[in-house]
Amino acid sequence: MRNIFQQELSEVQIRLITLAETAGTIMDKASRAFLNSDVTLADEALALAEANESRALDLDELVIRVLSTESPVARDLRILVSALRMSASLERMGSLASHIAAIARYRYPGSAIPESLRKTFEDMARLDLELVAKAAKLLANTDLDLAREIQAQDEAVDRLHRRVFEVVLAPDWKENAMFTVDVTLASRYFERFADHVVDISSKVSFLQTGEWTDN
Amino acid sequence: MRNIFQQELSEVQIRLITLAETAGTIMDKASRAFLNSDVTLADEALALAEANESRALDLDELVIRVLSTESPVARDLRILVSALRMSASLERMGSLASHIAAIARYRYPGSAIPESLRKTFEDMARLDLELVAKAAKLLANTDLDLAREIQAQDEAVDRLHRRVFEVVLAPDWKENAMFTVDVTLASRYFERFADHVVDISSKVSFLQTGEWTDN
Repeated sequence: MRNIFQQELSEVQIRLITLAETAGTIMDKASRAFLNSDVTLADEALALAEANESRALDLDELVIRVLSTESPVARDLRILVSALRMSASLERMGSLASHIAAIARYRYPGSAIPESLRKTFEDMARLDLELVAKAAKLLANTDLDLAREIQAQDEAVDRLHRRVFEVVLAPDWKENAMFTVDVTLASRYFERFADHVVDISSKVSFLQTGEWTDN
Repeated sequence: MRNIFQQELSEVQIRLITLAETAGTIMDKASRAFLNSDVTLADEALALAEANESRALDLDELVIRVLSTESPVARDLRILVSALRMSASLERMGSLASHIAAIARYRYPGSAIPESLRKTFEDMARLDLELVAKAAKLLANTDLDLAREIQAQDEAVDRLHRRVFEVVLAPDWKENAMFTVDVTLASRYFERFADHVVDISSKVSFLQTGEWTDN
């Protein structure tokens, strides 16, 4: 019985890693769609986000089945409850990335980014991709150093998010309202994506140490 | 034993209703702060959102304790798993409302809303308040008519959200980038707040009927 339970927990873990990897692929396609006005990549990101949503629901059903048949307690129970939350975060990350793809799609063949903010968004996209790759790695192999790196990198994303507003609200910002709306929303989506990675990393740290590192 | 479990479930229900009522109070204060540039109300909303977050965590701990001691299966298990998700939604709603309060605080003593969008935001705030009141009612007493009203009202919020962008992107929009950023983000927060009410109502409907009405 114990052995089956361990197999089930490992199945939950594998599926969480897959969700994280897919969230990374969605963000990769979405951010390239956004940076390069590539509508094919945008459509691929949108389709993948839908697939990820349905995989997250499947994972939730698996967790409910394991809770029901194994009635776990203590740490095992917390792992499964955390899996439900992490699956919600990973689904949401796919959805946030797909909103970025939708902006690119909406503005096509035009660009959604004015040149003055291109570098900022390139940096944000790169950090988000590094963060989600670290989340997948952390889910595969708990490493508290990685959890600390995630915290620091999220702060860098927050700084870039504030930088977007500094540029947009500066007196020399001459772009039209469409650019202002697009970069405001896109920046928010990149920032929330990183927040979810921090949530995931806090949950993994908590399961490891019994202490919340943040939140 | 059964009796204790029913008491625990009813305690979970009461706490969810309280979270919903508090989310409503936060939105009431935040939207009045935003509409009337009232910094006292903004601070109250921000403080309440923090309290709601800690109450949501307490509820999660209660649910984990009940899962651990009662090992529920079938519908009882689904109620508790749904409670975890609804508590996450209700916490997030408080947080979204507090972002609206933060915009009001940030722009004080100025206003964050240009006159041309005042009516749209008043309508959005009213709908969000009606929606969260319906969520609390639905948690207290499952009523599938109420769940249908919630769906329809969320669509009205989505229309107002699109209306904000129509106004901002119209050729006669002459407001500065600060107004554009503020109304873009505020509109997004009002819209997401309503989305969470729909999520909660879908979960209540599912527990009642076994069928998802949306998502």
